[in-house]
Amino acid sequence: MHHLSDEMRACIEKCLTCYSICLSMASGHCLEAGGAHVEAKHFRLMLACAEICRTSAHFMLLGTPHHRHTCAECAEICRECADDCERVGDMQACVDACRTCAESCEAMAA
Amino acid sequence: MHHLSDEMRACIEKCLTCYSICLSMASGHCLEAGGAHVEAKHFRLMLACAEICRTSAHFMLLGTPHHRHTCAECAEICRECADDCERVGDMQACVDACRTCAESCEAMAA
Amino acid sequence: MHHLSDEMRACIEKCLTCYSICLSMASGHCLEAGGAHVEAKHFRLMLACAEICRTSAHFMLLGTPHHRHTCAECAEICRECADDCERVGDMQACVDACRTCAESCEAMAA
Amino acid sequence: MHHLSDEMRACIEKCLTCYSICLSMASGHCLEAGGAHVEAKHFRLMLACAEICRTSAHFMLLGTPHHRHTCAECAEICRECADDCERVGDMQACVDACRTCAESCEAMAA
Repeated sequence: MHHLSDEMRACIEKCLTCYSICLSMASGHCLEAGGAHVEAKHFRLMLACAEICRTSAHFMLLGTPHHRHTCAECAEICRECADDCERVGDMQACVDACRTCAESCEAMAA
Repeated sequence: MHHLSDEMRACIEKCLTCYSICLSMASGHCLEAGGAHVEAKHFRLMLACAEICRTSAHFMLLGTPHHRHTCAECAEICRECADDCERVGDMQACVDACRTCAESCEAMAA
Repeated sequence: MHHLSDEMRACIEKCLTCYSICLSMASGHCLEAGGAHVEAKHFRLMLACAEICRTSAHFMLLGTPHHRHTCAECAEICRECADDCERVGDMQACVDACRTCAESCEAMAA
Repeated sequence: MHHLSDEMRACIEKCLTCYSICLSMASGHCLEAGGAHVEAKHFRLMLACAEICRTSAHFMLLGTPHHRHTCAECAEICRECADDCERVGDMQACVDACRTCAESCEAMAA
């Protein structure tokens, strides 16, 4: 990935980390915990967040200039997911990964 | 998928058709034809188009309101891909699928 | 997709239909219904089924001979998902899509 | 991802790294270099390798026991991709990532 800028490589890594944490917490933590963790709105948001992080990384890896738009959308969904995970509680790893990813994607979208 | 509107179901189908045609033409036609068909800009655009169609369908299937943004981005990339396939030539199936998908996604994004 | 056989095109379509139904029922039906529909084992299986159907279609669209292995795995997961949806109940559309897809993938894997 | 074993977390990371390197080298290196780098068989294999690495990571993150099968398939495709990248030449980063991923996936499939 030597043809990608350091900043973009860092953003790809943050997207893939956020994807990994959202998906594994949804499946390995929320589904086991039940209750508020499997409310439709919360769980759906986590799956959407995992998917946009995956896509955003994919666009940067492809090297398409459209990554600006997927990064902008990724930043927005990550912030919403972070807030919702904070509301539900017991999801700090997800809150942190989403906030870190949102910040990085926002910079790439500018 | 009875809980999704007819319009959304139609859009999902168009996205998955466009994804299928872009990816199979890139791999089964462009890579075999070579020349202009494997120019970096053209081929990368086809892969990006396949990916955003896949993601856009995914968001509608999840039922997240963020589908408006992925549909808007999908419409934009599909139009660009249609124009580029027209320029390269011998890609009419891809031109048609991209234009049909763009129109449907634009309506869903509104 | 004229370079793909009729049988393969039919299998791609069945995989994408099964993917669409599994994902939209998981997100739009199971998460709303709760109870047995969001048991970890059931919900996780639906997400795994959606993913392998997506991947299996992707491999056939790419035209790689490795599609035999992803189709074999897809058939296995689809059968397991159909049985589990039958056990949970009120998921007939998913049962049918999984069985149809499994049969088609099994033929492609042979 | 505290509920996943150390070995599985390491394998997920190797899969996502291999996915990233295969996709970014295909799009950012092979498409620019042309010649043997865009031969249908080679390029298609790189896209298939990127996809199975992505899926294999997804299955481990979901926590489904079917990850054994996607890991086995991932190991096989990664080895084939490493060999082909070696044959084409000037792709050492991809050769290394594929071999590392194959070894890790093979252990997870056992």
